[in-house]
Amino acid sequence: MEKMLVFGHKSPDTDTICSAIVMSDFQKKLGKEVKAVRLGELNKETKFALNYFGFEAPELISKIEEGQEVILVDHNEFSQSVDGIEKAKIKMVVDHHRICDFNTAEPLYYRAEPVGCTNTILLKMYKENGFEIDKKLAGLMLSAIISDTLLLKSPTKTDEDEKAIKELAQITGVDYNSYGLEMLKAGTDLSDYTAEELIALDCKKCDLKDKKAKVAQVNTADITEMMKRKADFEVAMEKDIKTNGLDIFVFVITDILESNSQAIVLGESTEIFEKGFGKKLEDNTAFLPGVVSRKKQILPVLQENA
Amino acid sequence: MEKMLVFGHKSPDTDTICSAIVMSDFQKKLGKEVKAVRLGELNKETKFALNYFGFEAPELISKIEEGQEVILVDHNEFSQSVDGIEKAKIKMVVDHHRICDFNTAEPLYYRAEPVGCTNTILLKMYKENGFEIDKKLAGLMLSAIISDTLLLKSPTKTDEDEKAIKELAQITGVDYNSYGLEMLKAGTDLSDYTAEELIALDCKKCDLKDKKAKVAQVNTADITEMMKRKADFEVAMEKDIKTNGLDIFVFVITDILESNSQAIVLGESTEIFEKGFGKKLEDNTAFLPGVVSRKKQILPVLQENA
Repeated sequence: MEKMLVFGHKSPDTDTICSAIVMSDFQKKLGKEVKAVRLGELNKETKFALNYFGFEAPELISKIEEGQEVILVDHNEFSQSVDGIEKAKIKMVVDHHRICDFNTAEPLYYRAEPVGCTNTILLKMYKENGFEIDKKLAGLMLSAIISDTLLLKSPTKTDEDEKAIKELAQITGVDYNSYGLEMLKAGTDLSDYTAEELIALDCKKCDLKDKKAKVAQVNTADITEMMKRKADFEVAMEKDIKTNGLDIFVFVITDILESNSQAIVLGESTEIFEKGFGKKLEDNTAFLPGVVSRKKQILPVLQENA
Repeated sequence: MEKMLVFGHKSPDTDTICSAIVMSDFQKKLGKEVKAVRLGELNKETKFALNYFGFEAPELISKIEEGQEVILVDHNEFSQSVDGIEKAKIKMVVDHHRICDFNTAEPLYYRAEPVGCTNTILLKMYKENGFEIDKKLAGLMLSAIISDTLLLKSPTKTDEDEKAIKELAQITGVDYNSYGLEMLKAGTDLSDYTAEELIALDCKKCDLKDKKAKVAQVNTADITEMMKRKADFEVAMEKDIKTNGLDIFVFVITDILESNSQAIVLGESTEIFEKGFGKKLEDNTAFLPGVVSRKKQILPVLQENA
């Protein structure tokens, strides 16, 4: 049996990758050896953060063996987790999402809080245990919270996230505003991704009652520029819908500077989106002013209207 | 909308009732008004504990309205919770069981730890928040941990439970051994319960793959005395099997002094039990030496062999 593995969700984002690295450090401080791994390619924002603070990317895995001991961070839904998760021994979860499509045969550690970022909870765990956080690790944690809260502009942000950002910036010694903007901008350089890659980069599967859905999101500093590739996105989305039997695919292009989004919506069940947001799709798209958070502003709307 | 409700599982035991009362005190200390309620009749052990430390029984409820805000303690599985839980707004869970048949539409506070009793976790939460625990409340928490760990004799007991018992005994000023034995014995006075009441007193529904099961348990100081009512139990169990379409009903009579159990097993799928414990039922019963914990020694065995 391999040693215990710790990982975040598929289509990893900065919080998921940083959470896995931070949790492996936390476990080491508890005297346990665990290995941080990842379930997909790093996006450019995450690469920027790892590089800035001098961390290697965790090893990529695609499945796990029956009985493997694991710690999940930044997710719990099996559909977002590694292949084989149903037969793993889940020892611990630290997360900030709803709980769904998750179960275990035995009691475990589970810690969820409705804050903007997993690393905000991890920071509390370090403090509760009296563990020190070094400069580099504080930088990683800071990057994760900046990413998940879009530099404190997302409605998912809580007071605890804001306090955590300030505290971590102090430890790591960077100006969180200028570093944060630089990091987020690094993530918006999407020019060398194919349309297929872009709709898969940060994509979550979810069930809307009996409908199968995917909601993908990319960050940009220029929606107009991104929308020039609309036809390519539509081809890629149609292909995904067919391959995976989806009822609806929502692709959200979010302007992180202006805090708006443009959605492209395809599938047999686009009326869920139209009903939820109270607007007709025009040429498969709709503009969503003020919408930046999939978790808080998109998924609940779709769930309630399915 | 009524104020936030906090409750434990159906067929309440001492931990479930005490957890609800303790959590409502904890929330008050956080500045929030919540109301402790219960989902069923108190058993004699719980009555003894409430009476000893001067607490009233929480109000009995049977269902909740859509959108009601709730805190769950000592359970998470919807099948063990209040009627209407699917449409409630679950804000928080504190529990020490596996996670199963549970989901929410939104992020929440969820704290589970694999310890012997919910009150062991609640004690940590008081300490983390720097909240004082008064003598009476400490007595309740102590009673819950004694109950769930059978005065530290159950295999579900962890070092943390043992430390918690000692700490709480100090605060409340009782000798935990003599108080604990007195409390557990109060719970074994089952003479005025009907057979129907006894099989329902501490009964958990659970799914074993595609089979519907119930596993009920009572504590006694004299298995032989209890087994005199075997024929009555069998009639009550057969009735329950028919009414609820069960595939298997396991009724466990546990000797808390000798740490053994006698099981009565009925239904179409008794082979799950026989396979799991490697013994043939004789006249519908089997003796299980050393078995006292449903959670750790019975449910996993049935789940693995279904």
